[in-house]
Formats: sequence, structure tokens, C-alpha cells
Amino acid sequence: MTPDLSALKWNANGLIPAIVQQHDSKEVLMVAWMNEESLSKTLETSQTWFWSRSRKELWNKGATSGNTQQVTEVRFDCDADTLLVLVDAAGAACHTGERSCFFRVLGRDAVEPL
Amino acid sequence: MTPDLSALKWNANGLIPAIVQQHDSKEVLMVAWMNEESLSKTLETSQTWFWSRSRKELWNKGATSGNTQQVTEVRFDCDADTLLVLVDAAGAACHTGERSCFFRVLGRDAVEPL
Repeated sequence: MTPDLSALKWNANGLIPAIVQQHDSKEVLMVAWMNEESLSKTLETSQTWFWSRSRKELWNKGATSGNTQQVTEVRFDCDADTLLVLVDAAGAACHTGERSCFFRVLGRDAVEPL
Repeated sequence: MTPDLSALKWNANGLIPAIVQQHDSKEVLMVAWMNEESLSKTLETSQTWFWSRSRKELWNKGATSGNTQQVTEVRFDCDADTLLVLVDAAGAACHTGERSCFFRVLGRDAVEPL
């Protein structure tokens, strides 16, 4: 079945947040944004493609770092406004080198963007 | 350590997205929004509190349904603009009665808000 991507609830900028989760361990790795083109490319290639709001361009996770993400399934929530992308991630998902972007705990670690 | 919540990156509306994950199975249950007050109440009470953008009010998950969420840990990502709230969820997280809001698969299920 070819999904009707236009039926997803894209925000005012044509974007939808995508939570990326390791398919077997269920670790939440990262969150990034997709537009319809990046989601289409993700489904076509089974590799994650996102939209960079700062650079205003598509990016393929791992294209430069080698830390690619093989997509096993894409889920969406009851509001159809958030995606859950199940992947098999090679190496770190975070630009800091951590496996997951969510490596800090509120109340234990200093709160600031890295 | 009392976390400095003001150091989180709140959006233009003073909100931050919170991914809610079952702490042991690692199932992603839902995504909702928090403002600083709802996050403070979440930390104080160890129950999840969110900000409803449609009703413009705080809501305590499970207050009416009984499907409460006991918070075990709150994580935040490298950008400090997304929270990962680990919980022990009693019953369904989704208003549809499903355990998780992410029960539909792109390419298998019809895409529309429920």
C-alpha cells in the first residue's frame, strides 16, 4: 500500500517531527524533522532523510559520519502529527558521539544545549 | 540537584515536546507538550503533567481516565529542546484505548487523525 502522505498533519512549515528508535533495544536515539520529500526518500531508500531547519536542506543521516540508519518500520500517532521511525542504527545517532541524543538526565546533568 | 529549567530551549510559545516512554519495555507511548509549570509539577509529583494547546490549560494524565503515569526519570537531548519522560504507565496512554498512540504503521494503515 502506498501511503497517502498528504493525509499526515504537517505543521505550518510543512514539517512533522520524527522520533527515531532502535528497533530491537527500543532505545530512543534522536528526534529530527521531516518534510514530505524527506519522508518519501526515507520510504524509498529505507535510510533516514530529514529536513534541516537551520541549513534549509535535506540531509541523509550518516552520509558524512557513516552512522547510517536502516529503516525497518515507520509508525504514526493517533493525531497523525508525529512519526516514530524504527531503525537499525550503525554507531552513534548523536553529533556528540553518544549512541542516543538523550544521554542526560534532568536533575543530574547540567541543562544546556551541547 | 534542582535542575535549571530555564536553560532548556523552550519554543516561541514557551513549550517543549515530551516523548513519553514506558521505562522497562521502552515502548514509546505518546508525545505531548510541557510548559515550565507542567514540567515543574511533573518533577514535584512524579506524575505527568502537560500543557493542552487546544484547551490552553494544564492537564494531569490519568486524572479523568485513571490511566496515570508514574515518572521514573526525565531525560533531555543534546539540543536541550526535547524531553524523554520515562514512566510506569497504568493502562492505555492513547485516547483511543490503545496502549501506545503509535499503533499504526505507514503503508499498512490508513493515514488520518483519529
